[in-house]
Amino acid sequence: MSDHRPDTPACILVRPQLGENIGAAARAMLNFGWHDMRLVAPRDGWPNPRATALASGARDVLERARLADTLAEAAGDCHFTFATTARTRDMSKPVFTPETAVAEARARMAAGQRVGFVFGPERAGLENDDIAQASAIVTVPVNPGFASLNLAQCVLLVAYEWMRQGDAAVRQAPVPASASVAEVTQWATHLEHELDAAGFFFPPAKAPHMKRSLRNLWSRMPLEQRDIQILHGALRQLVRGKAGGG
Amino acid sequence: MSDHRPDTPACILVRPQLGENIGAAARAMLNFGWHDMRLVAPRDGWPNPRATALASGARDVLERARLADTLAEAAGDCHFTFATTARTRDMSKPVFTPETAVAEARARMAAGQRVGFVFGPERAGLENDDIAQASAIVTVPVNPGFASLNLAQCVLLVAYEWMRQGDAAVRQAPVPASASVAEVTQWATHLEHELDAAGFFFPPAKAPHMKRSLRNLWSRMPLEQRDIQILHGALRQLVRGKAGGG
Repeated sequence: MSDHRPDTPACILVRPQLGENIGAAARAMLNFGWHDMRLVAPRDGWPNPRATALASGARDVLERARLADTLAEAAGDCHFTFATTARTRDMSKPVFTPETAVAEARARMAAGQRVGFVFGPERAGLENDDIAQASAIVTVPVNPGFASLNLAQCVLLVAYEWMRQGDAAVRQAPVPASASVAEVTQWATHLEHELDAAGFFFPPAKAPHMKRSLRNLWSRMPLEQRDIQILHGALRQLVRGKAGGG
Repeated sequence: MSDHRPDTPACILVRPQLGENIGAAARAMLNFGWHDMRLVAPRDGWPNPRATALASGARDVLERARLADTLAEAAGDCHFTFATTARTRDMSKPVFTPETAVAEARARMAAGQRVGFVFGPERAGLENDDIAQASAIVTVPVNPGFASLNLAQCVLLVAYEWMRQGDAAVRQAPVPASASVAEVTQWATHLEHELDAAGFFFPPAKAPHMKRSLRNLWSRMPLEQRDIQILHGALRQLVRGKAGGG
């Protein structure tokens, strides 16, 4: 990453399929000054000549794009992430419009946090496991009888909102020292590991759903760094105390 | 034209070149409930099978599109028209952003006027003669170093603004089944009890502060009833699993 504080959110494309769409997303971003693109497991590998060809003047965005194997890795330094979905799903997460999401993102970034917007693959969109890792959901309120936004158009609308709300529209609410996605993921992994050892994920058929519910729970919580430290410490002591003879 | 009063502005495409782009513009419109398309001298004639193919679910917009030879004819029933341009030109006309243009359009339409947004051909944009016929100019404030909005994207942004400012832009946040204070307290007590048994609150002088921090942590979290159930279950299993022989 660049060493200066980022002035626009990260645009995280999860498993994008066509290079053309990655290039079009880069153009959409740059129209409104966004430059921090991150790619999670692009289907056709990376770099992709079709993406480069379509990006045209936005090639610089592609060349500086960060490649990652997982969403957790790509969003590791973000304190708050928005998962874009076509429909609000039953994930019990706060649901934002682009307008309210950008207001939230601007407030957090003004307080020094990093924020990412996460976009899914062209056809199917984000999977529930991806959404479970996000802090919140953002949905464009389209015509319920006709919704046909493509990937670059979704990116465009969010980046447009960012521009529209301008630097002056920063909310003055205090923002806590949120834990990063990496820190929350580390905690969720720690707990999952200990619960696994304790035989919590039973029966095995239900384990994936149970694990997703737990990940979803933690990613929704407004956890601060010190909360994470307390939780790690408590879990370690619970395991140690019992193993020691409690 | 339909005989009831139109509830969205007219979208007037002047000399569009590719049928694909006409179809894409129809889709962009319909995403936000726009349906009144007018075509001025489309290059490849009308109807255009490529437009129809790309419009997909928005074919109805194309089928009802009004064909005209001139902009004056297409905009004949409009009381106010906005010419979209990439740069503000020296035409001594009021210049709007999409945001201010839509506010103006909404005010005029609420007063019974008809309003049209005029979009130029893909490559060159509107000619000065077209702009001269418009009431005002609308320009999307893009990155001065990189502007690459295509026709459908321009339509999309204006129609998005229309929706955003509308009454229908109601946030659809579901209200979660929040846990009661009693349920959160019960959980915090359960955890405190087990942590006490595991020797977590050490040294004793620090115990009250540590307990308060933990209580504070849980009361800040947006916990739902099912989260509380999961947490109770996880803690019981952690304790049981370890006691049983972990």
